[in-house]
Amino acid sequence: MTIILEPIGKVEASRSEIRDDGWDEESACVVLDARYPAQALQGLDAFSHVELIFHFDRVDPGKIETGARHPRNNPAWPAVGIFAQRGKNRPNRIGSTICRVLSIDGLRLHVAGLDAIDGTPVLDIKPVMQEFLPRGAFRQPEWAGELMRDYWQRP
Amino acid sequence: MTIILEPIGKVEASRSEIRDDGWDEESACVVLDARYPAQALQGLDAFSHVELIFHFDRVDPGKIETGARHPRNNPAWPAVGIFAQRGKNRPNRIGSTICRVLSIDGLRLHVAGLDAIDGTPVLDIKPVMQEFLPRGAFRQPEWAGELMRDYWQRP
Repeated sequence: MTIILEPIGKVEASRSEIRDDGWDEESACVVLDARYPAQALQGLDAFSHVELIFHFDRVDPGKIETGARHPRNNPAWPAVGIFAQRGKNRPNRIGSTICRVLSIDGLRLHVAGLDAIDGTPVLDIKPVMQEFLPRGAFRQPEWAGELMRDYWQRP
Repeated sequence: MTIILEPIGKVEASRSEIRDDGWDEESACVVLDARYPAQALQGLDAFSHVELIFHFDRVDPGKIETGARHPRNNPAWPAVGIFAQRGKNRPNRIGSTICRVLSIDGLRLHVAGLDAIDGTPVLDIKPVMQEFLPRGAFRQPEWAGELMRDYWQRP
């Protein structure tokens, strides 16, 4: 069974090559496809945050991981399954990131904190509701915090 | 341009018909497709929460909304764009929910708090890292809290 999707728009961003860290240095905007009316974004500015679902289209399908590997190939971190990490070389090549809404201008949604490069196809935009954030005690392994250390802001 | 995805597995859940509320009454599990090794989930149990991306395959494509509408067709709430709400009748019919990890058993990932019905195709599983949760001040409109009032637990 296959599922066929059509991008709803694309990312316009200041970063055009794939790099791991320092995403907060970049500016980014989602531009909805012209077949959508501006009403598709109506009311989104009442939310502080938005979840963007996008497609890592620049990832070579031959490099998709299906088992376990060291995140970023760093042997200091444990080998974990592809579904226990957020790396881009994953089945279906889907990315999902919560960003801050900056402004909306017609079909353009300006955001802060998007870790996607220029031209990335966008599959969905959802408002972030607090009721959909993690419920109950939260924990993550130490390697995750180490990997994320410079992800947003480089020292 | 189209994007072709293949489900990585499917939901096994106690709810098999679409209803709006009371999702915490249900039990649910993601069963990975047999082409994946169990290692694909290795280390996921070190995370308390997981983000599941799935496909609302039971939604009639003819009912997909592309403009604005009242959430749940409730005129007491403002008409907002389809990308300012999380309703299922949306372009690409993608769902995304953060669930609690209960246990992993081979290719089976048991979770709590999944709002997807039995048989739903799953597109991706990602660990939730605190660095990917909303950063900065958080806000949402009043209608969102009202809509979500009984979503997880009915009174």
